[in-house]
Amino acid sequence: MGAAVARRFAREGYTVALLARGEAAAREVRADIQKEGGRAEVFTADAGDAGSVSAAFSRIRAELGAPEVLVYNAGAFHVASVLDLDPATFEAAWRTNCLGGFLCAREVLPAMLERGRGTLLFSGATASLRGGARFAGLAVGKFGLRALAQSLAREVGPQGIHVAHVVIDGMIDTPRVRGMAPERSASTMLSPEDLAETYWQLHRQPPSVWTQELDVRPSGEKF
Amino acid sequence: MGAAVARRFAREGYTVALLARGEAAAREVRADIQKEGGRAEVFTADAGDAGSVSAAFSRIRAELGAPEVLVYNAGAFHVASVLDLDPATFEAAWRTNCLGGFLCAREVLPAMLERGRGTLLFSGATASLRGGARFAGLAVGKFGLRALAQSLAREVGPQGIHVAHVVIDGMIDTPRVRGMAPERSASTMLSPEDLAETYWQLHRQPPSVWTQELDVRPSGEKF
Amino acid sequence: MGAAVARRFAREGYTVALLARGEAAAREVRADIQKEGGRAEVFTADAGDAGSVSAAFSRIRAELGAPEVLVYNAGAFHVASVLDLDPATFEAAWRTNCLGGFLCAREVLPAMLERGRGTLLFSGATASLRGGARFAGLAVGKFGLRALAQSLAREVGPQGIHVAHVVIDGMIDTPRVRGMAPERSASTMLSPEDLAETYWQLHRQPPSVWTQELDVRPSGEKF
Amino acid sequence: MGAAVARRFAREGYTVALLARGEAAAREVRADIQKEGGRAEVFTADAGDAGSVSAAFSRIRAELGAPEVLVYNAGAFHVASVLDLDPATFEAAWRTNCLGGFLCAREVLPAMLERGRGTLLFSGATASLRGGARFAGLAVGKFGLRALAQSLAREVGPQGIHVAHVVIDGMIDTPRVRGMAPERSASTMLSPEDLAETYWQLHRQPPSVWTQELDVRPSGEKF
Repeated sequence: MGAAVARRFAREGYTVALLARGEAAAREVRADIQKEGGRAEVFTADAGDAGSVSAAFSRIRAELGAPEVLVYNAGAFHVASVLDLDPATFEAAWRTNCLGGFLCAREVLPAMLERGRGTLLFSGATASLRGGARFAGLAVGKFGLRALAQSLAREVGPQGIHVAHVVIDGMIDTPRVRGMAPERSASTMLSPEDLAETYWQLHRQPPSVWTQELDVRPSGEKF
Repeated sequence: MGAAVARRFAREGYTVALLARGEAAAREVRADIQKEGGRAEVFTADAGDAGSVSAAFSRIRAELGAPEVLVYNAGAFHVASVLDLDPATFEAAWRTNCLGGFLCAREVLPAMLERGRGTLLFSGATASLRGGARFAGLAVGKFGLRALAQSLAREVGPQGIHVAHVVIDGMIDTPRVRGMAPERSASTMLSPEDLAETYWQLHRQPPSVWTQELDVRPSGEKF
Repeated sequence: MGAAVARRFAREGYTVALLARGEAAAREVRADIQKEGGRAEVFTADAGDAGSVSAAFSRIRAELGAPEVLVYNAGAFHVASVLDLDPATFEAAWRTNCLGGFLCAREVLPAMLERGRGTLLFSGATASLRGGARFAGLAVGKFGLRALAQSLAREVGPQGIHVAHVVIDGMIDTPRVRGMAPERSASTMLSPEDLAETYWQLHRQPPSVWTQELDVRPSGEKF
Repeated sequence: MGAAVARRFAREGYTVALLARGEAAAREVRADIQKEGGRAEVFTADAGDAGSVSAAFSRIRAELGAPEVLVYNAGAFHVASVLDLDPATFEAAWRTNCLGGFLCAREVLPAMLERGRGTLLFSGATASLRGGARFAGLAVGKFGLRALAQSLAREVGPQGIHVAHVVIDGMIDTPRVRGMAPERSASTMLSPEDLAETYWQLHRQPPSVWTQELDVRPSGEKF
């Protein structure tokens, strides 16, 4: 999905900074964007590590300038009961699911506030609204990310920064997910390109009708 | 706002049935749409009266065909404490705020289900999520309309009908509202045209990423 | 459940006015209360009819004095899709599920406000928080009743009246429900006596820690 | 408030393990409980540190046996905008507000599951439901703790463990808070003793009517 969002914004002329833990997948996305005539650069960081995030954004700002849009998608996910989740895994999941959103927001906000505009888009999940059995490892971070998005919206919205939280309720139709759930019909999965369009439309919303939160869900998904 | 939504859809080539209690305002909207080269017809009905709604939709279907999109905006609003709201007023408010949505949905759904597509858009408010002091007369109907939208989404979504609920959190920038609150700055009001664009984008969402609910709010609104 | 709540309050010395559409079941409850040494009287009313409710409360006040506690339990329930619910049934369900709560609150509030104390307890359901497929007929009224409870809490709470909404999430263990779902284990049903104790505890809460909303659910219920 | 809860349970004959970062305040609570004829012991731990929590519970189990009830109250609170919160402070707040609840639950659950009963009570706040401006440091942890409570309730509820989350909406009437807000009237503050009674009642709820979440709020508090 991150790849689709990157391509969508690149198609509108945005230069995209692809921030990922490893370079391999991000390089493929960059190649796709370049093939379409767009511009993207790859930066590596561990989303849950303050020093790593800070260093990556320094490089981004130096090479590409201060970001106008942040899309925070990083997610870590271990389905296990609380007793089966060791504390280190639980904590690492929170760092990726939530702390990274805080760290990235702090990096991009100063220049946005100076300009009086900018967009922060945070990706939530079903687990942003409901702590299910064996989902504490995901829900604790996703609830936290939603809290962060709300606090930020109230803090910086009046200064021209649009902060939105997207509750993605369903599986995204990627090769990896298809492999895990081959019996799923397409009508129960979100198309990455359609989802990328949602993010683009959120970014384009005029300040008179900003959405703070919306859900997106395939028509065939039970909820 | 209804006028702006009507114009937005007319501009895309939709023929618009303007359903209103009285003809005067709807005729003005029709004239505006005709001036822009679009087509609109005026129909009168009391949204909270089953017979009146049924008769109006029979005329709409006969003259314009079965609707592809329903936008339910009707609202009635009396700020008063529960002790100061007489039962007849309370009930009439519910009929307009909620029952009418049920009546209109029943009129448009059969043809939509036959075609396997259609869109139902319901307009909510801050009072859809919070029952404030002196707002029971509005909140009871708006909570109910939200319940209706959720039930409908789950009933007919899997059959191709998109049902969305828009939580409009703020004042809409119309001449009437400006007159009531002349001190308000524009950054705390929703532009009807921007709101109409939101409705149009909801209608255009592909089934893989349907939104069931979103909020819209001017950047300067406290929440 | 109404019977269990009535017995619980009678056991504490409260005189109970049993308000029901028909007399038969209420007379049995009265007999049970009298057997335990308590006092109860039967009054008939159609909860959704303003004149009927008003007349019943006039008789209650004349015979027993102004109520100190209101427990609103009335419910009407038709599982059907929106297309299969005729408007008259939909409206009648709302009148019982929601309008009656408004009508009864208006009857008891004036004396409560004069005394500066009183308790209003409203019974919600799973459908108070979620509009499920084929549940619009229940959810519209239950959402509305929750809105009413919130508005009332904000209006009269600061004047000493405690307004609480109980989300009953599960089936109540009554002979009728047992007949409908004989395979259900007791651990998935709410005991009426335990539920009555919850209502009693809510009534006893001191104003420093009033609960506005709580859920109750049997330990074996999925949620 | 922790002191009041400890005294309330001690009065019912429970031996209380007082877990705190420092010993001083906990010793006073222990002295109060002993004066009333109860039993309490002091244990120190840093709630957000896995090793420290684990060591403390080993001592508790060795000295007092496996706990039947856990009350998780620890909270850390820095009012600051996201830009003014340094990452270390933000993370430390989360560890206290949320991670500690996870660590403590893991310590007490094994014995509870073996017995088939037990109670876990988590203390939430207004910030559990709403991320306010300048409250991200609190809300991220409190949202997370709520997610944890929900996941736990679904995981271990069917096995006889009651998990409840208490949304404390208002200031607790303690000497420290009175000092910070001397102009506050008592009707806008929660009495610690009344709050302790709420916790006691939650622990006493029979499994047929378990509450997963409730709010508590002083009658004079706006909400």
